[in-house]
Amino acid sequence: MELYTYFRSSAAYRVRIALNLKGLMADYRYVHLVKDGGQQHKPEYLSVNPQGLVPVLVDRGHVLTQSLAIIEYLEETHPQPPLLPKDALGRARVRALAQVVACDMHPVNNQRILKYLETAFGADEAARKLWYRHWIIEGFKAMERLLTDNPDTGKFCHGARPTLADICLVPQVFNANRFEVDLTPYPAIKRINDHCLTLKAFADAAPEKQADVA
Amino acid sequence: MELYTYFRSSAAYRVRIALNLKGLMADYRYVHLVKDGGQQHKPEYLSVNPQGLVPVLVDRGHVLTQSLAIIEYLEETHPQPPLLPKDALGRARVRALAQVVACDMHPVNNQRILKYLETAFGADEAARKLWYRHWIIEGFKAMERLLTDNPDTGKFCHGARPTLADICLVPQVFNANRFEVDLTPYPAIKRINDHCLTLKAFADAAPEKQADVA
Repeated sequence: MELYTYFRSSAAYRVRIALNLKGLMADYRYVHLVKDGGQQHKPEYLSVNPQGLVPVLVDRGHVLTQSLAIIEYLEETHPQPPLLPKDALGRARVRALAQVVACDMHPVNNQRILKYLETAFGADEAARKLWYRHWIIEGFKAMERLLTDNPDTGKFCHGARPTLADICLVPQVFNANRFEVDLTPYPAIKRINDHCLTLKAFADAAPEKQADVA
Repeated sequence: MELYTYFRSSAAYRVRIALNLKGLMADYRYVHLVKDGGQQHKPEYLSVNPQGLVPVLVDRGHVLTQSLAIIEYLEETHPQPPLLPKDALGRARVRALAQVVACDMHPVNNQRILKYLETAFGADEAARKLWYRHWIIEGFKAMERLLTDNPDTGKFCHGARPTLADICLVPQVFNANRFEVDLTPYPAIKRINDHCLTLKAFADAAPEKQADVA
């Protein structure tokens, strides 16, 4: 397998964690989202993924896009260890937690969105930081409630094993720290994130551990 | 089952289609996202979903959130007719197409985002329309390529039966039409959307058919 990745992309970070948790090896292909005006816009990369986004996983010549779809694919093709619980309600809860991050938080703070804010609305760095933090705070408020109000929350977002929810949460906490969001109001999120990072699968996937870190 | 829905919410629209395709009945509870300053912000609704977003599906007392997680739950608990193909690669393709809409397009054009643009950056209606159309066009360009470059595309996004991808696409085309996006550059999207709407399951879920249409 080959993974097209960028150290700071939180969608790529998710797939790196999933591969590590599954004990799967992939050759990393580095796509620098800033250098050269963004290598994701170059014809070589667009021929791999016309959408110009990372990550992409190539498995036996098949090109897979969208981090959550990739992780569900890994789950179906390499079921052990599982990244989703067995029961339908548990699976729905884990997927919903993952989607709070992947649908409600991350897309809104994507690099291309911040660029549009700058270009079209003249949003300076301070205004963009406010925007970024606002959506992290909105999402973490919801997530914290979903985690604290539910007896299924354990050492991880759901029970005693890492799931898709943790895989989405940890890269989002990385972003929050990068943008200096105070995590004090989110003790459950902080506790789970800290616990995840004690696992080698999570720690090795971190941006600062990547060969393309700049 | 009970579905908390708003006629114009495209995430709720997705779940309405899925329920119809599965032949499942749900009592609709209407949450008006504009009236009374937004009924989703009221304590009664926040006690159902603290995130203050629609849709919510309640199944035997269990509260399920996030449209894609809800639809995967319906797929697991009511497998017939299937909304995902059988093979892992096909499932990954369908989920990726769904996520182009659900992660890359829809969240960025959410009502709360448009409100922030207005409040923080003084974006007037014309500027907000440009924003809205921009992200639809970006997403549809990618989607059109993914649909035309792939032999698995059929009468529907994937083969000869409706899947999760169509369930996400049709509400997004509804939004595009509402914001007067010219669909001429996206013949595959237009063809598939038109075909879906010939099915009663899709047609009955349309915003204009809902009891809460305003």
